[in-house]
Amino acid sequence: LLSKLPDVGVSIFTQMTLLAQETGAINLAQGFPDYDPPQELLEALARHALTPGHHQYAPMPGLPRLREAISTQVGRLHANAPAPDPATEITVTAGATEALYAVLAAVVRPGDEVLVFEPAYDLYGPAIRLQGGVPRYVRLPAPHFRPDWDAVRRVVSPRTRLVMINTPHNPSGAIFTADDWNELARLLAGTDAMVLSDEVYEHLVFDGAPRLSARQHPELRERSFVLSSFGKTYHATGWKVGYCIAPPALSAEVRRVHQFLTFAVSTPTQHALADVLTADTTDAHAHGLAGFYQQKRDEFRGLLAGQGWDLLPVPGGYFQLARYDAFSPATDLAFAQFLAREKGVAVVPVSAFYHDGFDDGLIRFCFAKHGETLAAAAARLR
Amino acid sequence: LLSKLPDVGVSIFTQMTLLAQETGAINLAQGFPDYDPPQELLEALARHALTPGHHQYAPMPGLPRLREAISTQVGRLHANAPAPDPATEITVTAGATEALYAVLAAVVRPGDEVLVFEPAYDLYGPAIRLQGGVPRYVRLPAPHFRPDWDAVRRVVSPRTRLVMINTPHNPSGAIFTADDWNELARLLAGTDAMVLSDEVYEHLVFDGAPRLSARQHPELRERSFVLSSFGKTYHATGWKVGYCIAPPALSAEVRRVHQFLTFAVSTPTQHALADVLTADTTDAHAHGLAGFYQQKRDEFRGLLAGQGWDLLPVPGGYFQLARYDAFSPATDLAFAQFLAREKGVAVVPVSAFYHDGFDDGLIRFCFAKHGETLAAAAARLR
Ligand SMILES: CSCCC(=O)C(=O)O
Ligand SMILES: CSCCC(=O)C(=O)O
Repeated sequence: LLSKLPDVGVSIFTQMTLLAQETGAINLAQGFPDYDPPQELLEALARHALTPGHHQYAPMPGLPRLREAISTQVGRLHANAPAPDPATEITVTAGATEALYAVLAAVVRPGDEVLVFEPAYDLYGPAIRLQGGVPRYVRLPAPHFRPDWDAVRRVVSPRTRLVMINTPHNPSGAIFTADDWNELARLLAGTDAMVLSDEVYEHLVFDGAPRLSARQHPELRERSFVLSSFGKTYHATGWKVGYCIAPPALSAEVRRVHQFLTFAVSTPTQHALADVLTADTTDAHAHGLAGFYQQKRDEFRGLLAGQGWDLLPVPGGYFQLARYDAFSPATDLAFAQFLAREKGVAVVPVSAFYHDGFDDGLIRFCFAKHGETLAAAAARLR
Repeated sequence: LLSKLPDVGVSIFTQMTLLAQETGAINLAQGFPDYDPPQELLEALARHALTPGHHQYAPMPGLPRLREAISTQVGRLHANAPAPDPATEITVTAGATEALYAVLAAVVRPGDEVLVFEPAYDLYGPAIRLQGGVPRYVRLPAPHFRPDWDAVRRVVSPRTRLVMINTPHNPSGAIFTADDWNELARLLAGTDAMVLSDEVYEHLVFDGAPRLSARQHPELRERSFVLSSFGKTYHATGWKVGYCIAPPALSAEVRRVHQFLTFAVSTPTQHALADVLTADTTDAHAHGLAGFYQQKRDEFRGLLAGQGWDLLPVPGGYFQLARYDAFSPATDLAFAQFLAREKGVAVVPVSAFYHDGFDDGLIRFCFAKHGETLAAAAARLR
């Protein structure tokens, strides 16, 4: 049995979660909250679990009422962009992960190049290679992780089929600005390259920065697949419901693959999300997330202050990058293992986000945790 | 935008379900029950929906307690086969659909040949082609849809990477016998071809025939991916939970892809299934399915008797194939459309299960319906 992905092992998130379980370390590694979804969402799922007739296949692109609720909310939140058409532009998927894979499987042909900014979520490279595609990497430099558009221009070519964007960015929290979107649009004008914009942390934008989607740039919108996830927005990473918004011709391609990847997503879960999304006519939940997570960011940074950490700026998302100035382990992985084993706090070494293992001495903390969890972790790190 | 699947449209199941909705036809097309999962399963989901801490990512290969419950049950049901190791041999997936796709993505390399018996479920061919694989089709002849092993031998070659089996078979209900498994094992001995055995209707085997899994043949077990689905077994097609059983090296490849396809499956749903599966220590539910569906089969055949149908034998599954002798429409699709529009009953034309549209004049009814639904459909067909 020759493997198609010989170099892909157990993901760093799973590895560090297992190490946390083994060592009793506080798990600030894998990105998930240690609190629950809003009570009304849990109650909605319980209600639909008990509703007769809600247990067979949902329509392949998603329950119409959930797609309508998404369309209405996105229409309110993406200023200057028309609300996406629920019938032809929204596809509900088994998490943003499935949406990512479906987009890649739908558009990347053998030999096609895909531009990936690194550090990057660990699935991007292998999922591109499984399609026979060739990832072309552009490094985002610490501490701001902003694209160098000259470097990008040198990598984009007629073979570029797709550009992958992730904003707010995992692991750095960096956010695409209006200028970045304009640069990207200029770069792609006249080509038929497409954009996959992974916006799962879309609501986690701090310090009053504008939240800008690829959909809000008219020339990009027509070539973009925009992904989001109820897992991130509703503290329900284990429910595995996300979606892809794209113009009809692009959505048709995603659906062609989605119908073979998973066909459809849990019917009672989609009903529950539709209830809660429909009821929130002012987007209070989404709007509240920025403040909620900004407060957690500030709390966590305060807890780590004076411990010798170089804490990188966190403009968005729910991760804190840090370098430990007073200590230089051989590798960031060795440092992460030391922290789990000796300090009792599990983190992710950022080298796992580079195809070539580039090691800038950074580790990633997830601060989507209760205040007590963050305080306990900080006390252990002291 | 050049499509990678230009010939793939909306699946026949979706098309006929839409036609049923448009015309008010009784939907005997898409394969799903019109009754609900067992009450204890619905209550278990409601309970876990309200359980704090059950809403974040499940472990990538599945909740340990669900994998253990699967292992225990499969150990009881697959005589002469060791129970699969939950740690290394069972992977929980977003329905058997995801498992199918993950196996194909994990093992089929560009140019690899994959043997497919036709008629075949509509995802097999396109999902193989998306990997750059080449489907090699062998036709199963009506009315018994049994493999002609001489024909199979002519198609198997050193390029054969995988043989896809579906038993009980959709749409015909045909069942692999011990002889069939032996023939397959002989054919593959000395090669490194693998087997994907789609056994989602595993419990729906009628007239006392033995239910035989690929896992029960020792030489096949070591090269087989065996798939099943809680959707079929628990009348919960909309929950989208299935699983893949394979030896450790093969499971490792499936997991490499699964972690990028969907990463994990709904945590509360896995807990609910684990509760119900663990509680059923005598496999009463699984054992009851054969009788339950055999009775439906007999009821439906009785209802259609004397209407001029040629009803093919149904040894398993929940579909009835039929030919209408007294009427010869241009195509089976035209006949299916006529039945939906003029008679008010939606069915699937069996030509949709052939890559080349082979039309043997057959249509497929799904009889996983309440007695009243079946009676109403039969009355309309009269
Ligand atoms: C699916 S496990 C990884 C979760 C995550 O998004 C992260 O930790 O970066
Ligand atoms: C996923 S829709 C198809 C359901 C099914 O298995 C069938 O109708 O054959």
